[in-house]
Amino acid sequence: MDPEVEALLAPLRALVKEQGDVVRELKTQKAPEMDVKKAVAELKRRFFYDQSFAIYGGVSGQYDFGPMGCALKGNLLNLWRSFFVMEEQMLEVDCTMLTPEPVLKASGHVDKFADLMVKDLKNGECFRLDHLIKAQLEKSEKKATAEVKARCDDIIVKLDNMGAPEMSAIMKEFSMKSPVTNNDLSEPMEFNLMFQTHIGPTGLMKGFLRPETAQGIFVNFKRLLEFNQGKLPFAAAQIGNAFRNEISPRSGLLRVREFTMAEIEHFCDPQDKSHPKFDDIRGTEICLYSAANQMEGKSVYKTTIGEAVDSSTVANHTIGYFMARIQQFLLKIGIDPKRLRFRQHMGNEMAHYACDCWDAEILTSYGWVECVGCADRSAFDLNQHYKATGVKLCAEKPLPEPVMENVVELITNKSALGKTFKKEAKLLTTHLANLDTAAVESIESSLNSTGQHSVEIDGQTFTLTKDMIVEVKRFQKKVFVEEIIPSVIEPSFGVGRIMYSLLEHSFRVRPDDEQRTYFSLPAWMAPIKCSVLPLSNNPDFIPLVKLLSKALTEAEVSHKVDDSSGSIGKRYARTDEVAVPFGICVDFDSLKTPHTVTVRERDSTLQVRMPVDDVPEVLRRMSQGKLLWDDVMKKYPKFEQQQSSQK
Amino acid sequence: MDPEVEALLAPLRALVKEQGDVVRELKTQKAPEMDVKKAVAELKRRFFYDQSFAIYGGVSGQYDFGPMGCALKGNLLNLWRSFFVMEEQMLEVDCTMLTPEPVLKASGHVDKFADLMVKDLKNGECFRLDHLIKAQLEKSEKKATAEVKARCDDIIVKLDNMGAPEMSAIMKEFSMKSPVTNNDLSEPMEFNLMFQTHIGPTGLMKGFLRPETAQGIFVNFKRLLEFNQGKLPFAAAQIGNAFRNEISPRSGLLRVREFTMAEIEHFCDPQDKSHPKFDDIRGTEICLYSAANQMEGKSVYKTTIGEAVDSSTVANHTIGYFMARIQQFLLKIGIDPKRLRFRQHMGNEMAHYACDCWDAEILTSYGWVECVGCADRSAFDLNQHYKATGVKLCAEKPLPEPVMENVVELITNKSALGKTFKKEAKLLTTHLANLDTAAVESIESSLNSTGQHSVEIDGQTFTLTKDMIVEVKRFQKKVFVEEIIPSVIEPSFGVGRIMYSLLEHSFRVRPDDEQRTYFSLPAWMAPIKCSVLPLSNNPDFIPLVKLLSKALTEAEVSHKVDDSSGSIGKRYARTDEVAVPFGICVDFDSLKTPHTVTVRERDSTLQVRMPVDDVPEVLRRMSQGKLLWDDVMKKYPKFEQQQSSQK
Repeated sequence: MDPEVEALLAPLRALVKEQGDVVRELKTQKAPEMDVKKAVAELKRRFFYDQSFAIYGGVSGQYDFGPMGCALKGNLLNLWRSFFVMEEQMLEVDCTMLTPEPVLKASGHVDKFADLMVKDLKNGECFRLDHLIKAQLEKSEKKATAEVKARCDDIIVKLDNMGAPEMSAIMKEFSMKSPVTNNDLSEPMEFNLMFQTHIGPTGLMKGFLRPETAQGIFVNFKRLLEFNQGKLPFAAAQIGNAFRNEISPRSGLLRVREFTMAEIEHFCDPQDKSHPKFDDIRGTEICLYSAANQMEGKSVYKTTIGEAVDSSTVANHTIGYFMARIQQFLLKIGIDPKRLRFRQHMGNEMAHYACDCWDAEILTSYGWVECVGCADRSAFDLNQHYKATGVKLCAEKPLPEPVMENVVELITNKSALGKTFKKEAKLLTTHLANLDTAAVESIESSLNSTGQHSVEIDGQTFTLTKDMIVEVKRFQKKVFVEEIIPSVIEPSFGVGRIMYSLLEHSFRVRPDDEQRTYFSLPAWMAPIKCSVLPLSNNPDFIPLVKLLSKALTEAEVSHKVDDSSGSIGKRYARTDEVAVPFGICVDFDSLKTPHTVTVRERDSTLQVRMPVDDVPEVLRRMSQGKLLWDDVMKKYPKFEQQQSSQK
Repeated sequence: MDPEVEALLAPLRALVKEQGDVVRELKTQKAPEMDVKKAVAELKRRFFYDQSFAIYGGVSGQYDFGPMGCALKGNLLNLWRSFFVMEEQMLEVDCTMLTPEPVLKASGHVDKFADLMVKDLKNGECFRLDHLIKAQLEKSEKKATAEVKARCDDIIVKLDNMGAPEMSAIMKEFSMKSPVTNNDLSEPMEFNLMFQTHIGPTGLMKGFLRPETAQGIFVNFKRLLEFNQGKLPFAAAQIGNAFRNEISPRSGLLRVREFTMAEIEHFCDPQDKSHPKFDDIRGTEICLYSAANQMEGKSVYKTTIGEAVDSSTVANHTIGYFMARIQQFLLKIGIDPKRLRFRQHMGNEMAHYACDCWDAEILTSYGWVECVGCADRSAFDLNQHYKATGVKLCAEKPLPEPVMENVVELITNKSALGKTFKKEAKLLTTHLANLDTAAVESIESSLNSTGQHSVEIDGQTFTLTKDMIVEVKRFQKKVFVEEIIPSVIEPSFGVGRIMYSLLEHSFRVRPDDEQRTYFSLPAWMAPIKCSVLPLSNNPDFIPLVKLLSKALTEAEVSHKVDDSSGSIGKRYARTDEVAVPFGICVDFDSLKTPHTVTVRERDSTLQVRMPVDDVPEVLRRMSQGKLLWDDVMKKYPKFEQQQSSQK
C-alpha cells in the first residue's frame, strides 16, 4: 500500500479499533457470560461435542462430535444441500484431501499460507507472533507514558501489515520474553499452516492435507465445464474437511485444526457478473459493515441488497445474490438476525487471491466471528493452475459475430527440441504454442538477426536456434468464440463455527427455574425430533409405546423412547437439554379408546391431546417445518397437567 | 500356528488355491470384459469419478467423485444412516482424522500396520514384496520342473504367514530382480501404511491420519456409554474418511489411499452375544464360504443365518444379525444377489485384533472383492486403550444377587510417592489402586520382610519402601455389579468399493443397440431422479417445463431440464447414461387442456401419459421406492411414440 495513504489512514484505523473495542466490550458485558459457560458445559455433558482423545489428555484444536452434535451437523449439511446444491442445481463434487505439493504451490499456499511465530529458546514452546506482540503491548500500555502508549497503539494498528523484520525490531524495542516462562525468544520464523506428509513409499512425493476444499474444484474445472455442456455460468459445490496446523488454538470450536467446510465456486464471465435470480432477493434487508464505514469509524447500517449493489458498495449482482442467500440460510437454521452482519474486508486483510470479500459475521461470546466468507477470487486460481500445468482452464464465449483473425504460429521441429531439451521440451513446446503475435514476431526477428533467441520459463532459460523452428506460419482464421478464463465467486461456510454460534444463540434458561435449560433449535435442525415417554413404568403402557415408536420410524421421525424411572417432568427436562422439540406422553387416559396421547412443545412447554393415529403425520410435518405448533394448538384441545391423570 | 497342523494343511491349501484360480478364471472369462471397460470409460466420461489432480498428471490411488458419483455416494450414505443408525437407534459420532501417535501405538497400528516392501537399488522404485514374489513365482512356474513347481506352490500358499527373513531367503533362492528394470533389489523393509505428520508447530507431537474410523469410537467409549445411561448393549456408528499409504495401488477405486468408511461398533456383554432382533432375520438365506470349506477345498453353500449360528459356523447371534442386515442393505442398493457371498477369515489372515471375521465379498471384474467386514474384535481395543491410559473402559453389569467381597487395599502416602517419583507418581498410584488381592498381599509381605518391593510398569521399575504405604486396609464390601470390558462386533463398510461394485453390477447395454448403455440403479440410488425434456425448442413448451421444474423442486425430486437441441431419443440416451430412472417429456399434446405429459422408465423404455398435476407426487413416490413402475403402468394409458405427436 502507498505509505502516504497509510499515514493518512493510520490514525483513523486506531480510532476504529478503539471504538470497536468499546462496542465489543459493551456487547460482551451484555451477553450473560454465565449462561454461555453453562451452555458449553451442557454441550459437553450431553456430548454435542468434546475434546478429541480426552482419555489421552486431548489435543488442542481437535474436537469430536457426539451423537447430538453429529445429528445436528447432518441436519445442517442436508439443509445446505437442498438450499444450495438442489435449489441452484449446482454440481457437487467430493475430492481427495491429500494434495500433492505442486497443486498447492500453484495456488500460493506453499509460499504464503503461513503465520509468523517465535519459540521459547529454552523449552521450545511456540507463540503466534502477532498475538504475542499485541498481548504484550496491551499489557505495557497500562503503565506507560502517553508517548509510549501512542507508540504501542500505532504498532497494534499496523501489525496486520508487518513482516518478520519489523516484528523482530519491535520485539527488541520492548525486550519481549516468553509470557509463560520469561525465557528468551527466537527470531521470528514463518510457520506454514499446512500439515505435511508424504504420498507413496519412496518419501519423494511431498503432499499436504488440503487447507481448503476449493482447490479440488479448480483442478476439476475442465471436467465440470464439460459436464455442464460448456456453458457459463455454473456453480460447483463441495462439503468436506480441511486442515490448518494452528500454532496455538485456544477458542473451542472456533479455531480448530481439522474442520468441515461447505464451499461453492460459482464460475462466471468476468465481463458479466449478473445473476438470473437477483431480482428474487433484491429487496432482502441486510446489515452491512462496509470497508468505507470501518475506515471512517462509522457503524453497521441496514439496507437492501438491491441498494447495496446499485450503489456499488457490494461489487456485483452475483456476490449480492449469494450474500442474500447466505443470510436466508443462516436465519433458516436459527441464527439470531440481530447478531448477524456482513463485514467487508479492507484492502490489507484480503487473502492473496481475493479482489472483494464480505464475511457473514455472527456475534458470540467470543465477539464477532467470521462464519461464512463470500469472496470474488477473480480468475486467480484458474490462471495459476493454467500457468503450472499448461492446461488451459477457460471457457468459450460465443462472439456476437464471427471475426477473421490473423494468426501467426511457430511450427517447431519437435525432434530437434527433444534432442536438446530432453524432458523439458514439453514445457517449451506448450509455451511456444501459446504465444501471441507480438511474441512470435520477436522470436522470428531475433532468430533472423542473431540466429538464436532466449526464452525464460519459470526461471529456466531455453536457447532456441534456427534449426528448431520449421517455419513461421501466417494465415487467417474465422473465429466464432473467444476464450475466457472465468471469474469465481466463492461462498465458503465454516460448518463448525456456524454450529457453535447456533448453539449459543439457541441456549435458553427457563425463567422460572435456573436449573432448567434447553436449546430452542428449530424442529428441522433438532438432532432428535421427539421423545416417547410412558408416564410411569406401568406395563400397560408398553404396547402403545411400541406401536408409536414403530409408526414414527415408518414416518421417518427420529425419536427416543425414555422409559427410565424418574418423574415425567424430569424426563422432559432431559430431552429439553438435547433440544428435542416435541414430547409424546402415554398416560392413563391413553389406554381408553379411542387412544390418545399428549404432545408437548419444548419452548412453550404447552401440551395438547391428540388421537394416536394422527401422531406420525403431525409429527412428521412439524419436524420438517411444514406444520406449525400454533396450528396444532388450534386443532387439538389443550392439555393442562400430566400428573392429574395419574391414578 | 502348530507346524504339524500346518504341514497337514499345506497341500489342502494348495488344492484350494488351484480350484479357486480355475473358478476365478472361468468367472472372469464369463464376465463380458469389454462391457466392463466400456462401463469404466462411461463412468469417467460422465464424471462419476476420475483420477484426482489429473491436470497435474494425477496421483495413483486417489480419485475424485464428480456430480453423479457424489450424488450416488450421498444417496448410499443417507440410506445407510436410515437403515442402520436410525432403525437400530445407534449413536453416530464424527471424530477427527488426525490422530496422535499414542492412540495408534495402543491400537497396534504403529507396530503392526505395515507391509513388507523392497526397493529397486538404482531408481528407488518400491514394490510390495508379497505381490512381487507371487508374480515372479507364478512366472517361473510356467517353465519349471515338477520339483521347482511344487516348491513354488508351497511358497505361495505360505506367503501370507511369512516374515522378512523368510521372504528375503526366497528372493535370494530365486535371484529376484526388479520386474521393471531388472536392477538389484534391497533387503525387505517394513513400510508402515499410515500417513505421518506432525501436530502443532514444535514438530514434537507425531500424528497420523487415521487408518480406520473405529479408534475414534473406542476412545470415546466412556462418553457413549454414559450417553446410553450406562446400559449395554449399544452400538455407535461413524461415517468418515480413512487413509492408507498403499505401496503401489493399481486397482482403480478398489485400492485407494483415501477412502470413506461407514463403521459400526456394537458393544455387548462378552458372556452374552445374543441379539434382541435376531428372530426377525433368522430365516434370511445367505451364501457362506466358511473357513472349514475353504480349508477342505469345498465350495460356497446356501443356508439360513439361523442355521449358520445354530451350527456354530457363525460364532454368535450378533455377528449373524449384522451379516443378515449387511446383506439386506447391499441388495436394497442394487447389488446382484448372485454375485454376493460371505467368506470367513482363516486363522492366518485374521487382523491382529479380530477373533472371528466374515467378509461380504462382491464379485466384480477384479474377482471377489471384500466390501464389508464383519468382525468380532472381542475386548482387544478397549483393553489396549485402558492399558495405555489407565482409564477403565468398562461397563457395570448388575449381579443376579449382591455379594460380599473381601477387599484388600493399599493406602499410599501420596506425598512420599510424589517426592520420590515426581511426575511418574501418578502412573504408579493408578497401578497400585488397581491391584488384586494377591498382588497387594505379595507387596505387603515383601515390605514386611525386606522393607522394599519393586514394581515394574511398562518397562519402568519403581522401588517401593515402607514409608510410602500408610496401611494395608482389609474390609468387606457389598457389591451389586461387576465390571466388564465389553466385546465389540464391528461391521465395517468400504463405501468406494461398494459403489464401484454397484456400478459394475448395474451397467447394461441395450440389446438392440450396442452404442446405447445405461446404469440400472434403483430409483432411490439414482443421482438424479428425473429429466424434464421439451420435445423441441418450440417456445410454447417453456411455461410447462418451468412449471414442472418448480413443482418437482417443491416435491424434493432432483431433476434436470435438458432443453438442448438433439432428438428426444438422443436426450433420453444421455440421461440413461447417468442412470436417470424417469424422463418427462413435454410434447404437443401437452399443450392441450387438461395438460398431460409422458413419463418414461429407463430400464424398460416404456412410457405412459399422465396429467401434469399427478407428476410431482407420482415421481416423488417412485423415487423413494414407495410406488412401483408396474403400478403406474396399470393406472395410466401406455404411450407409444413420441415422434408421432410432433406436428
